[in-house]
Amino acid sequence: MPEIEAPLYTQLVRRFGRGPVSFHVPGHQYGRALPDEPFALFRDIMGIDVTELEDTDDLHHPEGVIREAQQLAARCFGADETFFLVGGSTAGNLAMLLAALDPGDAVVVQRNVHKSVLNGIALARARAIFVAPRIEPVSGLPTVPAAADVETALSRYPDARAVFLSTPNYYGMQVNLAPYAEIAHRRNVPLLVDEAHGAHFGLHPACPPSAMASGADAAVQSTHKTLTALTMGAMLHVRRGRLSMNRLRRALTTVQSTSPSYPILASLDISRAMIEAYGSAWLEGGMKAARRLRERLAARKGPFAIVEPAIGEACGAVDPMRIVLRDATGTLSGIRLQRLLAEQGCWAEMADDRYVVLVFGPGAAEADADKLVSALDRIAAETAGDTPDADGVQASAAAAVFAAAPEARIGEPCAIPLMPPEPNRTETVPLGEAAGRTAAETVIPYPPGIPLLYAGERIGEAQIAAIRRLAEADARFQGAAGAGMQEIRVMAQHQQEKETNR
Amino acid sequence: MPEIEAPLYTQLVRRFGRGPVSFHVPGHQYGRALPDEPFALFRDIMGIDVTELEDTDDLHHPEGVIREAQQLAARCFGADETFFLVGGSTAGNLAMLLAALDPGDAVVVQRNVHKSVLNGIALARARAIFVAPRIEPVSGLPTVPAAADVETALSRYPDARAVFLSTPNYYGMQVNLAPYAEIAHRRNVPLLVDEAHGAHFGLHPACPPSAMASGADAAVQSTHKTLTALTMGAMLHVRRGRLSMNRLRRALTTVQSTSPSYPILASLDISRAMIEAYGSAWLEGGMKAARRLRERLAARKGPFAIVEPAIGEACGAVDPMRIVLRDATGTLSGIRLQRLLAEQGCWAEMADDRYVVLVFGPGAAEADADKLVSALDRIAAETAGDTPDADGVQASAAAAVFAAAPEARIGEPCAIPLMPPEPNRTETVPLGEAAGRTAAETVIPYPPGIPLLYAGERIGEAQIAAIRRLAEADARFQGAAGAGMQEIRVMAQHQQEKETNR
Repeated sequence: MPEIEAPLYTQLVRRFGRGPVSFHVPGHQYGRALPDEPFALFRDIMGIDVTELEDTDDLHHPEGVIREAQQLAARCFGADETFFLVGGSTAGNLAMLLAALDPGDAVVVQRNVHKSVLNGIALARARAIFVAPRIEPVSGLPTVPAAADVETALSRYPDARAVFLSTPNYYGMQVNLAPYAEIAHRRNVPLLVDEAHGAHFGLHPACPPSAMASGADAAVQSTHKTLTALTMGAMLHVRRGRLSMNRLRRALTTVQSTSPSYPILASLDISRAMIEAYGSAWLEGGMKAARRLRERLAARKGPFAIVEPAIGEACGAVDPMRIVLRDATGTLSGIRLQRLLAEQGCWAEMADDRYVVLVFGPGAAEADADKLVSALDRIAAETAGDTPDADGVQASAAAAVFAAAPEARIGEPCAIPLMPPEPNRTETVPLGEAAGRTAAETVIPYPPGIPLLYAGERIGEAQIAAIRRLAEADARFQGAAGAGMQEIRVMAQHQQEKETNR
Repeated sequence: MPEIEAPLYTQLVRRFGRGPVSFHVPGHQYGRALPDEPFALFRDIMGIDVTELEDTDDLHHPEGVIREAQQLAARCFGADETFFLVGGSTAGNLAMLLAALDPGDAVVVQRNVHKSVLNGIALARARAIFVAPRIEPVSGLPTVPAAADVETALSRYPDARAVFLSTPNYYGMQVNLAPYAEIAHRRNVPLLVDEAHGAHFGLHPACPPSAMASGADAAVQSTHKTLTALTMGAMLHVRRGRLSMNRLRRALTTVQSTSPSYPILASLDISRAMIEAYGSAWLEGGMKAARRLRERLAARKGPFAIVEPAIGEACGAVDPMRIVLRDATGTLSGIRLQRLLAEQGCWAEMADDRYVVLVFGPGAAEADADKLVSALDRIAAETAGDTPDADGVQASAAAAVFAAAPEARIGEPCAIPLMPPEPNRTETVPLGEAAGRTAAETVIPYPPGIPLLYAGERIGEAQIAAIRRLAEADARFQGAAGAGMQEIRVMAQHQQEKETNR
């Protein structure tokens, strides 16, 4: 086995080995407080579940082993500075946005982002200029906006302080960010990236390059998702210049615990150490397992197929460690297929109406792929002849409708409410009378699952037309006031005026 | 051993026992990705480090085992509803304040609070009405404001939306909150409490009652500090009525990871289960160890003494599981004593100029106390005749000076800046010319360690007088522009006008 250099982890193990007597928190005292049965599985980890002491450094002012571990990570992931996160990519998204934006500032942001991005904009009391994503044509799934649309948004709103994108998407589709970085940098604003699903990018020849390698000014990665950190372990990588490090540090201190988890921090150190010790071979197991599943499914005539996105503008590359499955006959919805797989002991990452997403971690084995194929075979036999779950909406048709509203592709700057509006401050109006009002609910048509309106957005004629066309195409609407989107919940008129005058 | 009912933990162990095949995050795949050597200590815990799956519930929308575990906790800790926190008490403090306050709202808040409370007020864009704490006379340490001062603040600012207090303090001094709850409730505003250091309160006859038992509307407890959760495991207890549960849920979803750590959640479930299984006996070990240290130190003539607060208005009770040590000869500062103890393998929780704080967890043993006494004996022998570290400032004198500025006890509503002001927006002025300006720095005199001015506060004549008197008493000032506090950093005039006009 290659040599492992993990200074933070090593220090925690070394200090515990000296038999320290704890007169400090945590109260479990290196695990001694808990009886071995039935809680033995906490025992080992509690030996390094320690607090900020003289020899354990301080995440919020690192000067010792945490700083050293973060510096090694920055080098490994191509950043000027890397911050370990104990609050997941959520903490990184909140911190990037709080650092970049003051109240009232505008940010150009991809419309289909994780809710932590919306929460970050809301916490910053900033205004979002939403830009609609491109749709990958085979799957009907959204990725990143066209670079031209981002550029248009920036020239229409030259005061915008940042561009925020999210790639790869949950389905493993990635877009090269270099042109976006160039567009943002031409206006001297930072490109901020939620790369939660791409912690392994750039670490293997088969993986697309990382956001940092493509010119992002800051990128957050869920190290726990596709590398080997404990859950909530993530990293924020930063390039110096366009984002204030002072503000970023302050933001991280604000949103993260003042008692960070050392096991999570140590697992971040180890995740980086394994990459450096093994190189790209570290990801080979997962790749092989994914390849095996591809090959075995391709070789048989089953109802289950792998979704192969068209490589092009909307999807430049595909994560080799993620596979999207569907029932090609349309019998089983993604959600039902996920449930049937779980009954066979195979636990998928996520499912929607149509698709099931499978993640292959560094520890995946080819035997896993075989188990999955067997499970799929049993499911196919048991569900043959079932009534279809699928509702018959053609994703591509819905997507086309969405894309056909070019006026709606770039939104107006809008404040996202942090708190749900009080019911007595909203009212429900017929869709046809909603133009000019402020939405009090987020409207998400499925397919394609892109929020067409966020609560807080001004409703325009273009949005109304898009909603009508999607409703006619039998799309369903999540979180909408009325079935079939005949009506919509908006801010009450007096309330809306008050908001506008603020 | 008594029967343990811990539904969340039990479910995680049971599902792992079935040998699930993971096609989901985290990438370590129940720990399989990491080689046993040298990382074996993560192996056990990774078996339950899982994500939201059909059988593991969802912290942000609990309907299964997490809901069940939270309901058991609510019953155990006397709340209508309990929320498990994976982001420490920090997350609970932020969420309470975001739920209670809209931008511009005022909150009456104890001046000496944890920085997460200031961060919460800043994130809520609310205004703080700071109320100075009482000073415990023996130690010179601040506790909770006088109830009369809280009442005065509420009548002076009847629009205030909440009262925020923090007790016990870091040194284990507690104040009965019942009169404060009554005062707040008379005005129909919630009493919010940071009880981070008191997770064990109310669980043993020797412990003071908890904030919830004293009428608080919400209280956050660091279950990891004095019970047995993993670090970052905390709970937010809530009484229905004065705080919107909808807003609280939204706030918690905003500030906490969307990928919460199941080991931390399970450790919260276990912490509650152990209390219920063993009753007050669960805390006996720690109490005994603390008692033994008291007795042994009392029996010898050493330089090291236990600080015994005067029970009275400023300190109603003392945490029996926490001991504050000092060098009665004034030779060793608290910080130096902590360091010397660490060299002997005894790790204290915290130290300041004068004191060392020791925490006795449920797993503490009498042998720990003996080790500490031996270490203190060695330190006494080695440092006899050393030049005193202490700076000779009489804490009680400084405290008296602080308390002698009654006009300064209740501040004016002030916005706390979330981000540090840009240097070019601040200027340094002589202290005598600072009246009416907005502080750009937080001024903390030691002793007594209470921020006399927060960045963002308007500087009044009373504050200037208090700073002068403290400087004359040789107090030191942390974070101050000039030595001896002849000068102070304030917001530049044009900037200040801009802020006022917002």
